[in-house]
Amino acid sequence: MSQQEVDLIALGQAARAASRRLATLTAEDKNAALLMIAAEIEAQAEGVLAQNAMDIEDGRGRGLSEAVLDRLMLTPSRIQKLATGTREVAALSDPIGELIEGRVLPNGLRLNRCRTPIGVLGVIYEARPNVTVDIATLSLKTGNAVILRGGSETLRSNLALVDVIRDALQKTAVPLEAVQIISNPDRALVTQLLHLDAYVDMIIPRGGAGLHKLCRETSTIPVITGGLGICHLYVEPSADLNRAIDVIENAKVQRPSVCNALDTLLVHREVADTFLPAVAGRLGRHGVELRAHGAAWEILSGSPNAVVQEASPEDFDQEWLALVLGVKVVEDLDEALNHIQAHSTFHSDGILSNDWEHITRFVNEIDAAAVFVNASTRFNDGGEFGLGAEVAISTQKLHARGPMGLKELTTYKWVVYGDMHVRK
Amino acid sequence: MSQQEVDLIALGQAARAASRRLATLTAEDKNAALLMIAAEIEAQAEGVLAQNAMDIEDGRGRGLSEAVLDRLMLTPSRIQKLATGTREVAALSDPIGELIEGRVLPNGLRLNRCRTPIGVLGVIYEARPNVTVDIATLSLKTGNAVILRGGSETLRSNLALVDVIRDALQKTAVPLEAVQIISNPDRALVTQLLHLDAYVDMIIPRGGAGLHKLCRETSTIPVITGGLGICHLYVEPSADLNRAIDVIENAKVQRPSVCNALDTLLVHREVADTFLPAVAGRLGRHGVELRAHGAAWEILSGSPNAVVQEASPEDFDQEWLALVLGVKVVEDLDEALNHIQAHSTFHSDGILSNDWEHITRFVNEIDAAAVFVNASTRFNDGGEFGLGAEVAISTQKLHARGPMGLKELTTYKWVVYGDMHVRK
Repeated sequence: MSQQEVDLIALGQAARAASRRLATLTAEDKNAALLMIAAEIEAQAEGVLAQNAMDIEDGRGRGLSEAVLDRLMLTPSRIQKLATGTREVAALSDPIGELIEGRVLPNGLRLNRCRTPIGVLGVIYEARPNVTVDIATLSLKTGNAVILRGGSETLRSNLALVDVIRDALQKTAVPLEAVQIISNPDRALVTQLLHLDAYVDMIIPRGGAGLHKLCRETSTIPVITGGLGICHLYVEPSADLNRAIDVIENAKVQRPSVCNALDTLLVHREVADTFLPAVAGRLGRHGVELRAHGAAWEILSGSPNAVVQEASPEDFDQEWLALVLGVKVVEDLDEALNHIQAHSTFHSDGILSNDWEHITRFVNEIDAAAVFVNASTRFNDGGEFGLGAEVAISTQKLHARGPMGLKELTTYKWVVYGDMHVRK
Repeated sequence: MSQQEVDLIALGQAARAASRRLATLTAEDKNAALLMIAAEIEAQAEGVLAQNAMDIEDGRGRGLSEAVLDRLMLTPSRIQKLATGTREVAALSDPIGELIEGRVLPNGLRLNRCRTPIGVLGVIYEARPNVTVDIATLSLKTGNAVILRGGSETLRSNLALVDVIRDALQKTAVPLEAVQIISNPDRALVTQLLHLDAYVDMIIPRGGAGLHKLCRETSTIPVITGGLGICHLYVEPSADLNRAIDVIENAKVQRPSVCNALDTLLVHREVADTFLPAVAGRLGRHGVELRAHGAAWEILSGSPNAVVQEASPEDFDQEWLALVLGVKVVEDLDEALNHIQAHSTFHSDGILSNDWEHITRFVNEIDAAAVFVNASTRFNDGGEFGLGAEVAISTQKLHARGPMGLKELTTYKWVVYGDMHVRK
């Protein structure tokens, strides 16, 4: 066994011990710790900024784009947001201890199903150091210990933030080992973490498709898969077409780099001739490049304002994460449903229509984490859904689907009270 | 790609298509199919019995024990029970379509969280052909398509039962491909099934620890891990000790071959001298062999009626599934909690006590799927808990914990209704 394996096992054991302590703390204890973290973030802002500045300098040296560097960068106002966000987490109600259901069984046994922490979370994330604080505080709020593994681009920033958190925890009832980070950037440690099933109860990957695939294929610990969103909107002739353009524009351009941004637009043949050039004109203002298929290509290739290329078949299996949009004309609802069934990752798909029967079929037959009727796919978000916080967006069917809030970081146990009951 | 891989992909595609159809069927449609299956089981009982007789003959030839053969054997009354059980599943209320929560968001979006089928289940089971019918009917009830992979010992029986089910489905709105079985006994197909993540949404293993480990380590599909139960009871001096013996006897001997049977008994030092010999006397009547550690060995080795051996350290990490019981004396509640934390699989653990503070600590600090206070561990069961049915018992933290009923075969989707809403 290598030194690294031993280290990771020690980390796992410490996390398990911390999770047992965390499970017995009150909401007051945990909230006091969160407020202490917020104060410590403010108090140590300069130190964190200095570490982040070194990460950014390194990144620039390694040729990272300014767009990426901007995501990695911390500023005084971003640090302040971390402190404010932590206080907001403290103010959320604690899901732990909720009696989810309870009843007296016919034989007199009293059965309670109680919400409990999951135990130990392993979170693997790329870029953006604020995720370090987000995940640590949401884990703590829900009584879970967490082992963090951040991206190497912001290793110094992540370590500095975890130091700040642990400086705060030292003054509270929460054990230090509630928040641990793997400080060695060796990639082999990710694989080892994914096999730490004796100590880790759930893996949450936050990053690109490659990271999710690695976790799904390697992990012996249950994984929440998500993130990858090939999102569709289908436009029918009955829709309010002027406002439909607003929705499409919002879904595509409001934040093109995220998973709930629009990837493919399907338009009913009946309105394609006029609607597609109008969409192209609006999106062209934002520099969106269209990838148009078949009839859509015929219509748009002659359109004066459109930035358009002919789509290749693979373009419809693409999560763009950029100002690019696949466009296709469909004959009817069935063709739209078939296209979505064949190409969607079932993250966020929507219909823009005023036809009751068609909307009903779309909602019943499209099995996406979130199905939208006359609304932008951009709403698939924990904050927008009123969950108070967002840990990740799940595109799998087990445990949680769609935005994951605090409750999705919990499990339950059955507690059965008897009077020396025996089974017959 | 081998022929087998192609076959399994075809099976997966057919299951996915069937699951889409199933998701749109009404409860009436599904219940009609279940009643048809019950009738067909009765009508074709003789044919199934004939196939089962051949399985049993083969098993006897291969030297399977009579106890195992009894588990594999179908009889007219067991066939009748399958039909009756299927009618009972039809009578359960359909969880699909439940509006789990719903609200209007501040911006006017109407948010609904609706219960839906998971999609396609892969169920890998060992022995007992009745599981074929149980799983097929529970899957159908919840609108899931299922791919079955039974044990080779009852291959003919399983295939015959699936034929019966499909003969019934042919007369109903449910597509035939809702229930499929892998008929080739080649073990490589299990591995292939575990990698069929494009078509299968959840794997449920039903069998021994080896099967669960294989699934956890191999599957790229989310797995419900469970089954393995190293179950504890801890007895305090304050307990009603006469009745405590009844509970221990029930937990150990009522059905020793199952996962919720007792494996380890912890007894407080203060009462060990008198209580342990009394337990040994009662269990001795049933032929239970005790494995006693330290002080327990000292007490019991001199006890006239006890069938006892000195325990080895590994005996406390053993799921016995037989008339064997580990026994240990503990100094206090802390030692009991520490022992359980170190050795339990957190399936079913209990305390027998009349001490409020100790019971409270035990319930708070033991993080088992089911925690029992003054009751037998044998109650950890979907039927006993009033879930109406039991698919499996989960010992993992995600999705479902403890007995899984119909609801645990479902997921949900978010449906969002707007009026051309865009995100700000």
